[in-house]
Amino acid sequence: MANSRFQYVRGFESEARLLPNTWIVVRIDGRGFHKFSAKHGFKKPNDARAINLMNAAAVACMNEFPDIVMAYGESDEYSFVFDKRTQLFSRRGDKIMSSIVSFFSSTYVMQWPQHMVDAEGQPEPLVATPHFDGRCVLYPTLENLRDYVAWRQVDCHINNLYNTTFWTLVLKGGLTEYEAEQRLVGTFSKDKNELLFSEFGINYNEEPLMFRKGSVLHWRRIPVTVTKEGPTSKADPTPVVRTVTRQKLTVIVDHCDLLQEEFWTEHADVFTSSSVYANGPREAKGAAKGRGRKAKHSSETTTIVEPKEAAPAASEASQRKRTAEQACGE
Amino acid sequence: MANSRFQYVRGFESEARLLPNTWIVVRIDGRGFHKFSAKHGFKKPNDARAINLMNAAAVACMNEFPDIVMAYGESDEYSFVFDKRTQLFSRRGDKIMSSIVSFFSSTYVMQWPQHMVDAEGQPEPLVATPHFDGRCVLYPTLENLRDYVAWRQVDCHINNLYNTTFWTLVLKGGLTEYEAEQRLVGTFSKDKNELLFSEFGINYNEEPLMFRKGSVLHWRRIPVTVTKEGPTSKADPTPVVRTVTRQKLTVIVDHCDLLQEEFWTEHADVFTSSSVYANGPREAKGAAKGRGRKAKHSSETTTIVEPKEAAPAASEASQRKRTAEQACGE
Amino acid sequence: MANSRFQYVRGFESEARLLPNTWIVVRIDGRGFHKFSAKHGFKKPNDARAINLMNAAAVACMNEFPDIVMAYGESDEYSFVFDKRTQLFSRRGDKIMSSIVSFFSSTYVMQWPQHMVDAEGQPEPLVATPHFDGRCVLYPTLENLRDYVAWRQVDCHINNLYNTTFWTLVLKGGLTEYEAEQRLVGTFSKDKNELLFSEFGINYNEEPLMFRKGSVLHWRRIPVTVTKEGPTSKADPTPVVRTVTRQKLTVIVDHCDLLQEEFWTEHADVFTSSSVYANGPREAKGAAKGRGRKAKHSSETTTIVEPKEAAPAASEASQRKRTAEQACGE
Amino acid sequence: MANSRFQYVRGFESEARLLPNTWIVVRIDGRGFHKFSAKHGFKKPNDARAINLMNAAAVACMNEFPDIVMAYGESDEYSFVFDKRTQLFSRRGDKIMSSIVSFFSSTYVMQWPQHMVDAEGQPEPLVATPHFDGRCVLYPTLENLRDYVAWRQVDCHINNLYNTTFWTLVLKGGLTEYEAEQRLVGTFSKDKNELLFSEFGINYNEEPLMFRKGSVLHWRRIPVTVTKEGPTSKADPTPVVRTVTRQKLTVIVDHCDLLQEEFWTEHADVFTSSSVYANGPREAKGAAKGRGRKAKHSSETTTIVEPKEAAPAASEASQRKRTAEQACGE
Repeated sequence: MANSRFQYVRGFESEARLLPNTWIVVRIDGRGFHKFSAKHGFKKPNDARAINLMNAAAVACMNEFPDIVMAYGESDEYSFVFDKRTQLFSRRGDKIMSSIVSFFSSTYVMQWPQHMVDAEGQPEPLVATPHFDGRCVLYPTLENLRDYVAWRQVDCHINNLYNTTFWTLVLKGGLTEYEAEQRLVGTFSKDKNELLFSEFGINYNEEPLMFRKGSVLHWRRIPVTVTKEGPTSKADPTPVVRTVTRQKLTVIVDHCDLLQEEFWTEHADVFTSSSVYANGPREAKGAAKGRGRKAKHSSETTTIVEPKEAAPAASEASQRKRTAEQACGE
Repeated sequence: MANSRFQYVRGFESEARLLPNTWIVVRIDGRGFHKFSAKHGFKKPNDARAINLMNAAAVACMNEFPDIVMAYGESDEYSFVFDKRTQLFSRRGDKIMSSIVSFFSSTYVMQWPQHMVDAEGQPEPLVATPHFDGRCVLYPTLENLRDYVAWRQVDCHINNLYNTTFWTLVLKGGLTEYEAEQRLVGTFSKDKNELLFSEFGINYNEEPLMFRKGSVLHWRRIPVTVTKEGPTSKADPTPVVRTVTRQKLTVIVDHCDLLQEEFWTEHADVFTSSSVYANGPREAKGAAKGRGRKAKHSSETTTIVEPKEAAPAASEASQRKRTAEQACGE
Repeated sequence: MANSRFQYVRGFESEARLLPNTWIVVRIDGRGFHKFSAKHGFKKPNDARAINLMNAAAVACMNEFPDIVMAYGESDEYSFVFDKRTQLFSRRGDKIMSSIVSFFSSTYVMQWPQHMVDAEGQPEPLVATPHFDGRCVLYPTLENLRDYVAWRQVDCHINNLYNTTFWTLVLKGGLTEYEAEQRLVGTFSKDKNELLFSEFGINYNEEPLMFRKGSVLHWRRIPVTVTKEGPTSKADPTPVVRTVTRQKLTVIVDHCDLLQEEFWTEHADVFTSSSVYANGPREAKGAAKGRGRKAKHSSETTTIVEPKEAAPAASEASQRKRTAEQACGE
Repeated sequence: MANSRFQYVRGFESEARLLPNTWIVVRIDGRGFHKFSAKHGFKKPNDARAINLMNAAAVACMNEFPDIVMAYGESDEYSFVFDKRTQLFSRRGDKIMSSIVSFFSSTYVMQWPQHMVDAEGQPEPLVATPHFDGRCVLYPTLENLRDYVAWRQVDCHINNLYNTTFWTLVLKGGLTEYEAEQRLVGTFSKDKNELLFSEFGINYNEEPLMFRKGSVLHWRRIPVTVTKEGPTSKADPTPVVRTVTRQKLTVIVDHCDLLQEEFWTEHADVFTSSSVYANGPREAKGAAKGRGRKAKHSSETTTIVEPKEAAPAASEASQRKRTAEQACGE
């Protein structure tokens, strides 16, 4: 067979797998986005449309790859955190990372027209090719993972405070970009806060959370109630109208403070799962696959409720939701 | 500084670089393209529009990353071969691979409307997210590299002969897909060739080259003649009209046979460059960068030709072009 | 300088570092030790001299590389566990692993004459070259690390029970090796225990711990009392005789059950140190270096005790020792 | 089975293989040999006994691992070059490297007493543990490999010229080590050559080749003639005395100049073997294994020579030998 003469070249491929039982973070980062954003007239210091587009692409990634337990985005970068037990692509880092960065890129272009609209609601033309590079990083403990996302969120804070002050000096203060830069040399956070407040009456802490904290994506089971008609059982074929409440796993876009305990307490079931792994990889694999399967095929669990029954009392999930809103609602 | 407390997490990142002086192949592969092509009604066994879209995305990648010396595509996969001396991203494999797969994905979506048009010239709606996974493979010698692309081209041949026969049996022979599959069990290439010819009057060797050989992308210097007006020199400010012929580096889409010597002889300057490397990485880096710089900033070299002068005699590049057409034109 | 023309080749070397904050296990394994042990007449099923030699070489490794927090040996293999915070060789896995396997090998040969003595106390001639291969494995959590050493200890148990039964059948039962092998096909642990007891009056659980459990090496601070003469202080140059008790970090060779909690509770200070790392790698590095420095330069801490004072009450360390003996003493 | 609960930990092990068709260099390097050599009174600037011991250990490695095609040693380091086609340990770099460094270390200790003898022929006591670290480096082309060994040999030259001058100033010139160091600051090779000659009458180029060039180990087939008695064939059982000449593959210790062409021309059969690989890894594997098998089991090929026949005319191998001596004999 002609093929066999050449296929020895497969032996040059690496099938390296990522260390088991570690948190996999895929971080993607816009290439040349300074120029890209200028070319497309992104608003300064923040363009909510562009951030929403990034978030939409990230949400799409989480729905496509449900083993992602959370994601964090700021500016032109996004970090995706996989369940430490994930067996996606047998933990082949290159396949995981490339699939994410590809899916994100395609979605970014596909959803551009919905998000990047001008004042008249017309989409801005896409005149350059948005693209991202990616990398995989492993974190062995939850503490390290939390420090990672904290690092990115502190980075968001520092950059956003700087950019907000810089562009306020330029757009409202009438300074040139060079003058604004010079003005900020050597300043600390409190200096920038003070400058914004005393000279422009801006309380930085009242700026939108999305700009100050970046975006935190996570899963939440949301009860969805639908009405169905059909036989109750095989024995009794009489059609009955029933109300079915499903707990649908849904990606939530949040802007909470990841340096605080609340987020992690809220999602303790997701992030303190190491005990599962202790029973060996089979169970862990099952667990991670279960999650994936659910999210992929139905994203929901069905609970049949009697028609007469009142809406169920606040479920654990909805309670969690309220807590999260309080926790992250500043 | 608050940042410093967390930034130790950077120490978990790997900056691994690919072995120097080896050919880097980035192969990307459509994820779930069987379903994707069915959903978008790709023609069987080959949809020229879809292949042209893949090729267009690959051409865009080569123009964006001019250290790619050739690319080979078939079906929903593409292989990009980097100059063995490339210093792109300091040879960090994850950055190289992710940037390619991201740029390809974005371009695929952006160019979809131009390529995927129906009989009336209307673009087909894009209803699913096309995406690709990627991998990096290293080949130490030109021999191994040639065997790699030969492996892919033989794969293309085997798949296309099978698919052509299968779909002919279904579309022209009226067989069900199951019957067609059964009919082909255990057949060899010559059996399929014979079946196509005796039963359907199809000479497989007359099928389009693009389907049988896949697509081979490479660079060629193409002379471009423009007319310019301006002073000849600082000493003489009188404006003169001059004809300027530039050799513009252009990506060529070819369908030649990579198992033959011709392609490799034709591009011997690109593929037998090891002597440059012997002088150490500085020169090699310079060389690779030079190529990149040229392609990036101007993609051309300027030769001033006297207006009276006739068109230059067949240049090396145009001679090469003719040879290539003969060589690859079957 | 002539050198510079060639030194680009250094760029082909990899400086890959092991993932921070993970337990590093270096396991070494005798190559061809079946033949090696036969050639040197090792006693069957266990040769206490050979095991003691392995243990002595492992103790030497721990003293040379004090970031090893424990080691486990059975048969011709040894596993060395490094402090998860170690910065030895900047966590370059190849340097760590190669230094251990080299040091172990040299020590094995150097100490051969002391350990491998015949009945008359004469050293056996060393007629072949003992050597080992090595590997590095990372474990992200203490749970995974404990499962690793448990895996090796269970392996020791299974092999030793088999070997004990096999050689009893051969040496006491008069079976050929083939007959003994056939006799044991399909038997379970309880069958072998029963066979040993009913046919040979051997209670397997009374076999030496070292054979049944393998060897567990760990550190213990042992008080060492020495007498010193010298001035008490600069102010008072009169020489005084003082008794100085030093806590000397010493490697202990144990044979305790690593599947039980006791060992891990006993050494909780060593194995549950993750909180230190939370403060970032600098502190962790300091901590690990501190340990190394102490062990290397002095292996002790000095506590001056008044001459008149009685022996100190059972210190924490000596209490720990007693607990350990009870815990591991079956 | 109790084992299964823990054996998931094997999944944390990496089985990474080195890129095929590349030259594998294992370089080992003495750890703390400055101190080690001082402690054992190595002669300055070179101790021929210590170098011979290093060489003996390296020869033993080549005999144990016959896929090593050459080795180069200087000072306390040794580089082993494996056939680019080797399939030893399935090209698992950690196993290859650790086995070499372990075998070398053991042999170093075992052969210490034969080599490190004092003026009375008594072995020096070994009072510290010699050990080495190791690393694997890949070189894709022969050019890169030659540059690698050239790099090491130039390093040897530079160090040896410096050390020779330094120790001459100290031992014959009566300078302190500090004064000698100061004297050599900023000097070039020609300055040191001049200093040695004009002040001490030493022509550096007449110093022993072993010190100036380091040691080059390679294989040579050497004819060995033995006398055997036995039946000629099954048909004729009459015992006959025959002279058998075997070509025995033997490791040669050389000190030739690796920057010159001669060595590489001489061993062109070993170093320009890429054509074999073109036929795929099976043949290559066979070839490499063949070499291994021969060297391991018999290290020879048998040619029966008629008793009356004179010694064979200078064979290819012996001719090669003479050429090598001329080539390397300066």
